[in-house]
Amino acid sequence: MTELNLKKNHNQEQVAFLEKELRYISGIIKQKGRKILSNYTVTPPQFIALQWLFEHGDMTIGDLSTKMYLAFSTTTDLVDRMEKNNLVLRVRDEQDRRVVRIHLLKEGERVIEEVIQKRQAYLQEILVNFEAPDVKNLSMLLQKLHVEMKED
Amino acid sequence: MTELNLKKNHNQEQVAFLEKELRYISGIIKQKGRKILSNYTVTPPQFIALQWLFEHGDMTIGDLSTKMYLAFSTTTDLVDRMEKNNLVLRVRDEQDRRVVRIHLLKEGERVIEEVIQKRQAYLQEILVNFEAPDVKNLSMLLQKLHVEMKED
Repeated sequence: MTELNLKKNHNQEQVAFLEKELRYISGIIKQKGRKILSNYTVTPPQFIALQWLFEHGDMTIGDLSTKMYLAFSTTTDLVDRMEKNNLVLRVRDEQDRRVVRIHLLKEGERVIEEVIQKRQAYLQEILVNFEAPDVKNLSMLLQKLHVEMKED
Repeated sequence: MTELNLKKNHNQEQVAFLEKELRYISGIIKQKGRKILSNYTVTPPQFIALQWLFEHGDMTIGDLSTKMYLAFSTTTDLVDRMEKNNLVLRVRDEQDRRVVRIHLLKEGERVIEEVIQKRQAYLQEILVNFEAPDVKNLSMLLQKLHVEMKED
């Protein structure tokens, strides 16, 4: 038997159940996020773009469209509207003037932080019937899942 | 002290961490789902509509647009294209001929089932370094989270 054959294979039903729970929870989080956003002048795709810039720093439109699985022209329109609303700014690279990057402005940062705080408050509410060790355990298991997903 | 004040309040940092892990994992699952879908002629919003019909049975366009947070006209366009591709069919209610419901066809069901099977296979891969009790534990905790989210 090779090492590959020794890899753990989990019960099919268990995996199907887990896939379903993850899919449903993702859906609820997404809908909840949209409800929170409806109080802002930011659309869901704009919010996703703001998050990328918040977490990865300045990015070119090319990078941003790759990350967001959007066409270059769609991303350009998105950035145009965000620039008009003072959420972001196009900045020319000082070393290579041909390169333009999108820079997150204070107002964009504020929107991100407020929405994330509201999501945390929602989660705090949801966790009211969880014991502290369960929250810790769930965090650890999700972190492990996240790491494995990234390594894939 | 009222009963409300006795409600558990979890550590702020722990909740922030959990929110971030859930958000990242949702994002990866979404991107993974899009990659799987790119082998099909179905767009992501079409797939979400197919899933609603798969899980809740026949629905009116009104119900579907509410569930998907889309405008009625957008949902109508979506259904038109899916009907053209033989994924769904508009069916008139026998009791009340004014009511039209969207019905999932065999081809639509096949697409759903194939994509879900591929997601399960992906998850099986991801879980290779998880012990069986961890998978069981994660499933239980996510199920509890899902129940609490629904009751909200």
